[in-house]
Amino acid sequence: MKAINNRDYSTLIAAATQKIPCDLTVKNVKLVNVLTGEIYPASVDVKDGVIVHVQPGEACDSQSKTTVDGQGKYLLPGFVEIHMHVESSMLTPERFGREAVLHGTTSAMTDPHEIGNVCGMEGILWMVEDAKRSPMRQFNLASSCIPADAEFETVPFPIRAPQMAQLLDSPGVYGIAEVMDSNAVIADQPFMRDILAEGRKRDVVIQGHAPYVTGRNMSAYRLAGVMNTHTVLSAEDVRECMRIGMHANMQCSSLSTMFGLQKMVKGTEGMRYLDFLSVCTDDVHAKDMQQRGHVNALLRALLDAGVDPMDAIRCCTWNPARETGFEDIGAIAPGFAADMQLVDALDGRDPDTVFVGGKMVVADGNLLLPPVPERPAPFANTVQLQPITAEDCLLKVPSANVEIAAIECASGNRLEFTAEWETLPIVNHAVDLSGKPDYCFVAVFNRFGRGTKCIAVYKHFGLKAGAMATTISHDCHNIIVAYRDPADGAAAVNRLRETGGGIVAVKNGAVIGEVCLPVAGLMADVACAELVDKLDTLSEQLKTIWAEENPSLLKLSLLALTVMPGISMTDTVMVDGGTRTRVPSFRAKENADGIN
Amino acid sequence: MKAINNRDYSTLIAAATQKIPCDLTVKNVKLVNVLTGEIYPASVDVKDGVIVHVQPGEACDSQSKTTVDGQGKYLLPGFVEIHMHVESSMLTPERFGREAVLHGTTSAMTDPHEIGNVCGMEGILWMVEDAKRSPMRQFNLASSCIPADAEFETVPFPIRAPQMAQLLDSPGVYGIAEVMDSNAVIADQPFMRDILAEGRKRDVVIQGHAPYVTGRNMSAYRLAGVMNTHTVLSAEDVRECMRIGMHANMQCSSLSTMFGLQKMVKGTEGMRYLDFLSVCTDDVHAKDMQQRGHVNALLRALLDAGVDPMDAIRCCTWNPARETGFEDIGAIAPGFAADMQLVDALDGRDPDTVFVGGKMVVADGNLLLPPVPERPAPFANTVQLQPITAEDCLLKVPSANVEIAAIECASGNRLEFTAEWETLPIVNHAVDLSGKPDYCFVAVFNRFGRGTKCIAVYKHFGLKAGAMATTISHDCHNIIVAYRDPADGAAAVNRLRETGGGIVAVKNGAVIGEVCLPVAGLMADVACAELVDKLDTLSEQLKTIWAEENPSLLKLSLLALTVMPGISMTDTVMVDGGTRTRVPSFRAKENADGIN
Repeated sequence: MKAINNRDYSTLIAAATQKIPCDLTVKNVKLVNVLTGEIYPASVDVKDGVIVHVQPGEACDSQSKTTVDGQGKYLLPGFVEIHMHVESSMLTPERFGREAVLHGTTSAMTDPHEIGNVCGMEGILWMVEDAKRSPMRQFNLASSCIPADAEFETVPFPIRAPQMAQLLDSPGVYGIAEVMDSNAVIADQPFMRDILAEGRKRDVVIQGHAPYVTGRNMSAYRLAGVMNTHTVLSAEDVRECMRIGMHANMQCSSLSTMFGLQKMVKGTEGMRYLDFLSVCTDDVHAKDMQQRGHVNALLRALLDAGVDPMDAIRCCTWNPARETGFEDIGAIAPGFAADMQLVDALDGRDPDTVFVGGKMVVADGNLLLPPVPERPAPFANTVQLQPITAEDCLLKVPSANVEIAAIECASGNRLEFTAEWETLPIVNHAVDLSGKPDYCFVAVFNRFGRGTKCIAVYKHFGLKAGAMATTISHDCHNIIVAYRDPADGAAAVNRLRETGGGIVAVKNGAVIGEVCLPVAGLMADVACAELVDKLDTLSEQLKTIWAEENPSLLKLSLLALTVMPGISMTDTVMVDGGTRTRVPSFRAKENADGIN
Repeated sequence: MKAINNRDYSTLIAAATQKIPCDLTVKNVKLVNVLTGEIYPASVDVKDGVIVHVQPGEACDSQSKTTVDGQGKYLLPGFVEIHMHVESSMLTPERFGREAVLHGTTSAMTDPHEIGNVCGMEGILWMVEDAKRSPMRQFNLASSCIPADAEFETVPFPIRAPQMAQLLDSPGVYGIAEVMDSNAVIADQPFMRDILAEGRKRDVVIQGHAPYVTGRNMSAYRLAGVMNTHTVLSAEDVRECMRIGMHANMQCSSLSTMFGLQKMVKGTEGMRYLDFLSVCTDDVHAKDMQQRGHVNALLRALLDAGVDPMDAIRCCTWNPARETGFEDIGAIAPGFAADMQLVDALDGRDPDTVFVGGKMVVADGNLLLPPVPERPAPFANTVQLQPITAEDCLLKVPSANVEIAAIECASGNRLEFTAEWETLPIVNHAVDLSGKPDYCFVAVFNRFGRGTKCIAVYKHFGLKAGAMATTISHDCHNIIVAYRDPADGAAAVNRLRETGGGIVAVKNGAVIGEVCLPVAGLMADVACAELVDKLDTLSEQLKTIWAEENPSLLKLSLLALTVMPGISMTDTVMVDGGTRTRVPSFRAKENADGIN
């Protein structure tokens, strides 16, 4: 598979052999050759976006239309992101790409899973279209698990085999995105078998997601055609995956501070080859991208974890490229796309200069592109629910003689959240947390017109006042809201309804801060810097309602993700992800079983 | 691309998860994991020819229909041959496979180029069919250069773009075989552009052959879509190829004693990764295969050259597999074909036990297959020329006042043969070598009914009496004959005409030894051991006519190959391969230009 198709081979051959001039020569560089693991002086000739010759040595006899003097800097391949969701940046694909290239990322395999949950195939195909306006290569995959959890979740536009087939036959769709429902794969459930069969018969890449799957189950998952997983969590996971030829994509995302590269890379001890190792950002928010970087931040993390620098660079370039089956990205050699970056040092810093397909898109660390034209936000009306009242935010119980499932969050790790049965004050047939400062409500309201909701009590979650709500709520992206006072909760939800989605903070009934994400309630069509300014402003306001010094903007985003261990909630039910069982919000005291 | 298609994924998943029993478990082995470069105790479960689980450790909980105790031996992937011509073994594909598995080779990318020159597409497709009867996997490629040299050679059934398209659309044809006419590629000649376009549009592997091509020309060759070359000749060649992502297939064949792995591997000094390095046998005769081995002999050569043992094993397994785009051969992991071998030591020795697709085909070093049924030889009448006389073998000249082009062979290296102008005795308008013991004639007679021939004088070639002739004459496979006495030459040619081809030795007008190769004049449908016996008997006879202690059976085979440097000859003309010019057999003394 090639990233650059429709090549005029005659032109490329003529340019390589100097019968016609090349478009670009980048000379006087220290070439980082990830194919052999060498660094040596060289110059690179480019024609029609393709590298046509690499001349080793200081001398350069090229006569190209443009020559760029690399001033002795390192010339690295552009970084290749093996797995990510553009929506998590809260930027549209075009806007995302404009930020990512500043950090040296020139290709990404993307899973438009978030917009897919909200808008279905129409949303996915819009991502493909918008990505074309981006200065980097975004290879969209077809989201395989919409809903992510067929047992507990509902979405307006489920993707099953017929939709998968249609997506895979759409131009610009390159394979099947992370198969999150590993249970269905391993149990060989017919609906999943049929989805995978669509990929297998087209011989496209099938990406995985299989936390805590090991041994024979992991073999079964691999046998089904899944080639990688970015849910390796430990050294043991990494070792097992690499040994069975399952590419281990160590993630380091804005959502996954629970994962640590430092411990994961220990799984490679004793291995001579790291071909099956790479890294992914999965979900990176605009602010993290701006501050830490993108794939280059992961390169830095690998170096910090003690990985050999050349191995670390391969994990960000050639390994992910090869894993996807692309034969012309991830390295600097004849025939490869001219996706390259000039950097002062191999430490994961932002590049000075970035070329994508031989076009200079970043110079002196600045974007070289004209502004994005104004346009109306697509998918601006995806928050479909009736206005709600404080009453709707009450956790009602049939009698005072109940125990409440309080979700203990003290660990701070969503995967370790547990339900503990407690007796809490009941006022007017509803739980009253006004005298319990360590407690708050969390509710999920369906935002696709179903009218469903689920309300639960969270303990040590950190909300000390007011309410915070968002339409970014993996993976169904219903509205999730945390509140101490039901009136604040209702105000926050209603505000999202008015704005078309985003993140909102409310205190004493009034909106104190918000970031609007009108594109499907997930993304803004603004420059990264502009969005980060808004997020920063909101962050300041959030400090007044959260206990933490620097509350995460997206504390709520993973609470509704049922495919992982720990307690989560959908728009209808609480779920214990570890045991795959329902958890009632309350139960009669005399009855150990739930009554809800 | 997969070697095993039409998998029943449900069955494989059920077997991996022990819902149904596996067919085979190989337990108590030291697994050589070429993916990670580790060796550790393990057991391997197989279902439907596919590895479904690898259990690390000494324990084995598998309940398979058959369990093989590996007795602590090493379990290696079967070897993968990246480039070879089955015909060069002088065995049919089925017979070749029966010998190759004894040496641990379980897959080979094969180029049926020799039979293609003789029989065209019909011959190529017969190789595909016969390979199916073989106990190993033979992945036939479509020969791209028939004739090998469009400028100087003719063949009965040339392959151009339409034939290439037809071949590539034939089941069992996996790509384009070695593109020998590198000049045509680099010059972007339309006929070659069209041939390559057929491969590129189907996105199949395109293998290369580009001796002495370097720099911008090599870049151009790579840009055309060619992915490898097995004509690396030096450390510099290996380094250049690997650096530009051109797989360097270091060959070690029966014909190429001039190549040395020892010097070639020095090209990898300073490289951290050897992904683009592998080895190939190219042309291995039956006797060499029986005595030295097949790919395992190359493993031994790599070890002798000081290559790290795990790297060396990768060069014979995973590297060539990955290079071809096959995702399920060359390693032992779930999803891979169960092509494995048990060996006592990692030193290139023959294996004890070999499995292909989970079927045990070799045990205790012996083939476990029933005899091949008798069948008539296909392509038994490919030697088409009229009977010749001694007169036909004379090198005639227009006058005594000529200089003869004597091909100096003292170096023993065909690539260094040069033409030297000499005055030689002329009797009855023909060169007379009877008083010149260091000289002989070499002639090429067209064997496809064209009636053409070319006769030249060779010096220090080593023939001291009689004649030797063969229909194995790369790549056109006309009859090539070396003789001191024209009557012996005619007798040898006429004998090949009678037998349908092979190798024949004549002395004093009588056949003193021969090996019949009735299948296209290239192959015998007999067991390797039987053929080797015949070749040994012939070798003894050859000692009576050649100067060497152990004359090569195929001294003549490369003399007609015009695509390499040095002097060669076709059925019509002598060629200087280095300058790509014609060389006349003689010239008038007063005229520096040729008159032939």
